[in-house]
Amino acid sequence: MFQSFDTPTSPEAGPPRLAALREEMAKAGLAGFLVPRADAHQGEYVADHDARLAWLTGFTGSAGFCIALADVAGVFIDGRYRVQVKDQVDLGHFTPVAWPETRPAEWLKAQLGEGKVGFDPWLHAVSEIESLEKTLDGSGIELTAADNLIDRVWPDQPAPPTGPITPYPLEFAGEAHGEKRARLAATLAEAGHRAAVLTLPDSIAWLLNIRGSDIPRNPVPHCFAVLHDDGSVDLLAAPGKISEDLRDHLGTGVRLHAPDDFGPLLRRLQGAVRIDPASCPVWVRMELEAGAAEVARGSDPCILPKACKSEAEIAGTREAHLRDAAAMCRLLAWYEAADKTSLREIDIVTALEGCRAETNSLLDISFDTICGSGPHGALPHYRVTEATNRPLQEGDLIVLDSGGQYFDGTTDITRTLVVGEAGAEERRCYTRVLQGMIAISRLRFPKGLAGMHLDAFARRPLWEAGLDFDHGTGHGVGTYLCVHEGPQRLSRISEVPLQEGMILSNEPGYYREGAFGIRIENLIVVQPAAPLDGADAREMLEFETLTWVPIETRLIDPDLLTRAERSWINAYHAMCRNKIAPRLDEATAMWLHRATEPI
Amino acid sequence: MFQSFDTPTSPEAGPPRLAALREEMAKAGLAGFLVPRADAHQGEYVADHDARLAWLTGFTGSAGFCIALADVAGVFIDGRYRVQVKDQVDLGHFTPVAWPETRPAEWLKAQLGEGKVGFDPWLHAVSEIESLEKTLDGSGIELTAADNLIDRVWPDQPAPPTGPITPYPLEFAGEAHGEKRARLAATLAEAGHRAAVLTLPDSIAWLLNIRGSDIPRNPVPHCFAVLHDDGSVDLLAAPGKISEDLRDHLGTGVRLHAPDDFGPLLRRLQGAVRIDPASCPVWVRMELEAGAAEVARGSDPCILPKACKSEAEIAGTREAHLRDAAAMCRLLAWYEAADKTSLREIDIVTALEGCRAETNSLLDISFDTICGSGPHGALPHYRVTEATNRPLQEGDLIVLDSGGQYFDGTTDITRTLVVGEAGAEERRCYTRVLQGMIAISRLRFPKGLAGMHLDAFARRPLWEAGLDFDHGTGHGVGTYLCVHEGPQRLSRISEVPLQEGMILSNEPGYYREGAFGIRIENLIVVQPAAPLDGADAREMLEFETLTWVPIETRLIDPDLLTRAERSWINAYHAMCRNKIAPRLDEATAMWLHRATEPI
Repeated sequence: MFQSFDTPTSPEAGPPRLAALREEMAKAGLAGFLVPRADAHQGEYVADHDARLAWLTGFTGSAGFCIALADVAGVFIDGRYRVQVKDQVDLGHFTPVAWPETRPAEWLKAQLGEGKVGFDPWLHAVSEIESLEKTLDGSGIELTAADNLIDRVWPDQPAPPTGPITPYPLEFAGEAHGEKRARLAATLAEAGHRAAVLTLPDSIAWLLNIRGSDIPRNPVPHCFAVLHDDGSVDLLAAPGKISEDLRDHLGTGVRLHAPDDFGPLLRRLQGAVRIDPASCPVWVRMELEAGAAEVARGSDPCILPKACKSEAEIAGTREAHLRDAAAMCRLLAWYEAADKTSLREIDIVTALEGCRAETNSLLDISFDTICGSGPHGALPHYRVTEATNRPLQEGDLIVLDSGGQYFDGTTDITRTLVVGEAGAEERRCYTRVLQGMIAISRLRFPKGLAGMHLDAFARRPLWEAGLDFDHGTGHGVGTYLCVHEGPQRLSRISEVPLQEGMILSNEPGYYREGAFGIRIENLIVVQPAAPLDGADAREMLEFETLTWVPIETRLIDPDLLTRAERSWINAYHAMCRNKIAPRLDEATAMWLHRATEPI
Repeated sequence: MFQSFDTPTSPEAGPPRLAALREEMAKAGLAGFLVPRADAHQGEYVADHDARLAWLTGFTGSAGFCIALADVAGVFIDGRYRVQVKDQVDLGHFTPVAWPETRPAEWLKAQLGEGKVGFDPWLHAVSEIESLEKTLDGSGIELTAADNLIDRVWPDQPAPPTGPITPYPLEFAGEAHGEKRARLAATLAEAGHRAAVLTLPDSIAWLLNIRGSDIPRNPVPHCFAVLHDDGSVDLLAAPGKISEDLRDHLGTGVRLHAPDDFGPLLRRLQGAVRIDPASCPVWVRMELEAGAAEVARGSDPCILPKACKSEAEIAGTREAHLRDAAAMCRLLAWYEAADKTSLREIDIVTALEGCRAETNSLLDISFDTICGSGPHGALPHYRVTEATNRPLQEGDLIVLDSGGQYFDGTTDITRTLVVGEAGAEERRCYTRVLQGMIAISRLRFPKGLAGMHLDAFARRPLWEAGLDFDHGTGHGVGTYLCVHEGPQRLSRISEVPLQEGMILSNEPGYYREGAFGIRIENLIVVQPAAPLDGADAREMLEFETLTWVPIETRLIDPDLLTRAERSWINAYHAMCRNKIAPRLDEATAMWLHRATEPI
């Protein structure tokens, strides 16, 4: 099993660690110290070596940070973790702070008055620190780059990960890394930049057609790189991660360096060097400023090209989704046959990972499976543990959100299941969520529009009933890379125009607190729309569906559907049959046949 | 008649005027001079006194500008006026420039190289000049505020208008000007501003509950004002515009000054004084900078409060729309009875203005009526003249877009008419436009969303067929004020959240070049949505329809409609009957009955 169900809470370890940290703060002349959840790569997952926030406080959520002062230590957590934090930290020594409602600068001003607050410049992005500095301006509180004081007091800190870096073959990537490097170098030259510093592992993995194994869920290597305007790259990675095979793959255009060479290399750079303030560590900016280069700001040049998948990446992703759909069908068939009220949430998660593992192609799950039954379904990011593992009950809805990492692609799918018969209100809400998901699936739209222009289509059927959901409709998805990647999103705040080849999730939901949750999710990829007859038909874009798994029709209230929506459902299910049945054992194929009956 | 149909083109007058201007430029040591279409108030209409662009060049369009250099004079015009400009200017002396494709700075750099370019600081907004200065930076071309050289060489320039300013009664405004002044003064104080300079006539008209008569179509007074943080106002207006009645209305909180006092008054101001760079003349900024104040930038404090109409303003607007609907019904009944192929476009415009005039309440039309038949309908802003006046032909569609200024409100309505039988393609396109208009009308949506989030609903039915239209879906509308007002819009670029009381047009269209045009427009007002049953129903907003005039059902292709759309049409027509029939003569009532038959 990739997924675990324990909740590693040891609140009692926190206070002595905090005391040790405070001793170091005093020695260093610091009134405070920032302990973020992030590592130097600002990703969603961190290695054990970088789990400083959890080590210090006990809090294991995926976002948040601690500000330790001499007499108070605030643990800043967002709405998802308000309950969890209270179980995980010693409330006598740590103070949960509702974030972003309370902003760190305000809290610092109120708690501290004045003094120096240290931070590890490797672990904070340029824009994060600059924005904090701006709001602290004139307050008497000063931020100071410092050694990492946690690392000084963490005696058994795990070593940094040394997962091997492996080539990602051209047949899956679709474009040789030399071509990618040349293509991006041209964009640097056009912007007048001599080089760009790359600190995001998925950017480097995409650019060099490599994959890594340093953190769970995201098959990326911890490394840094500099892309030059001649198309060459300096890659900084621990020698233990580099095989001969990899050296051959990288060739002469990519110069390998040990991580310790990063500083000297940055100081030697000349001319305008681009950093992306949203993700670049302050440390990099400091080194550049200490050297000969002129710091230029811009976006990581890999982000947009990476998001626009190649034909080969799309082909691989299609195949990964068909394989994953067969696994999902086996799970759903198993679930239908099971005695449901003898099941708990973990049973479903375990069975699902088993179905994926049976493909013999599963390299990891793409994130910890969300399996929320009954009221747990109303928590959009619920993660089941042994402590919360709820037995299914008659009438429950179950939000099952999961995905797999396969060599040819990354999947992410949500289906809402039911235990026995659902209530009429649950069915009405389910139908409206489905209508929103269909509206996005059916959309044809002009080039140039962004997520903010389209997100509302996923919500209108809910709005009609006075309902809504409080997350975006969809996120970008990588190709055997991170299941969350930018820059595109389907969200009311996303200004990035949708372009051909971008993969997105389409996952409207509905959450009734304390009662039930609903989410239905397919992945989709932006494609040129099929040409239409007509004198004036313009070139447009549309979404190709990647996910082919039946959607529970017993939860649909057919009175709410338009003819077009009903046709879409039936056509979708016919495609599921055609595409997935050949991959199934006989029993599952029979289940698929039943599950895809026209409505 | 308010509307005229002549095209005042005298291209031959331009060259000697241009020569006279160039003499003045040489005397003043200027290599160029900017001649904008705008006056000091940056509105859509200018007085004859301010029609400098038309006087110099012959071009009478509603947007554009001329840059006169010693050897070339560029007339910058947008896509609407590419054809018209060629008829109106002497092409041997004036050079049409496609704008905004060619930006003035680029053109200046290419044509001029270096030198001083003069501009009248009264006629250009701060942001316009600053943005031009920025793009000219380092080019060797310098912008210089100068006297208006056109006014020096225009011997028979009409005098500035002196239309009387009249009070707008509390029963229509809904809030006394003292209360408005106090309310806005509080927002100034909150922003740390001692005063705000108001240069937009409709802002001042709204704030002080006054109306004017200086320009056509917009019942606003040419004047300036300063709002202070104590709620008092300095109003600068020509003494001839001020009656005793007005003095009584304004009371002691509004100090009256002659226009020439504006400079001294600005120089006496203290502390932070707000200007809106989007509309404030450069002259105001220069005077403030020469005085004691500190220039602060922000939006005109009247714009948002003015857009959120009071209950009284909405009630007045509703009544104005019912009156206007009766006039429209008389026009449509007349049209139905007429021998259509004996009609020309001007006949319809004249008949329509006659129907409005018969209300005995019409104070002006709210803009020049657009009546485009056949291929003219494909020009969204077509204005018929004696020269273009086209006879109607069998099968024509006619885009008829018009509105009235009444004391209680401003209307704006578009209906698409047909001559005889329309083709199947025209009907399909008409139906898709109508579906978009219905989608906006039926929308229920959460607070906080802006036009950019909702605009797409008006287009999706067209997108399905590969079609679209190239203007926004809707603009804000005033209450017996300007028919175009901000800040809200239904447009993919509008970020202003929609708020209760905002009036908008809902006018999707479709334009097939050289063939036909379609537009259907109602006005709508943002209202709290009627509460819904349900445990979790959120507070939302919806659009109340203000316009109640039948929509041509013979142009609908019913196969394209959903049940919900068909229900909306029938319910809308039932409301038209109920609301308008009591206001009609018997013959028109019979027409209304037929025109509103359920489909």
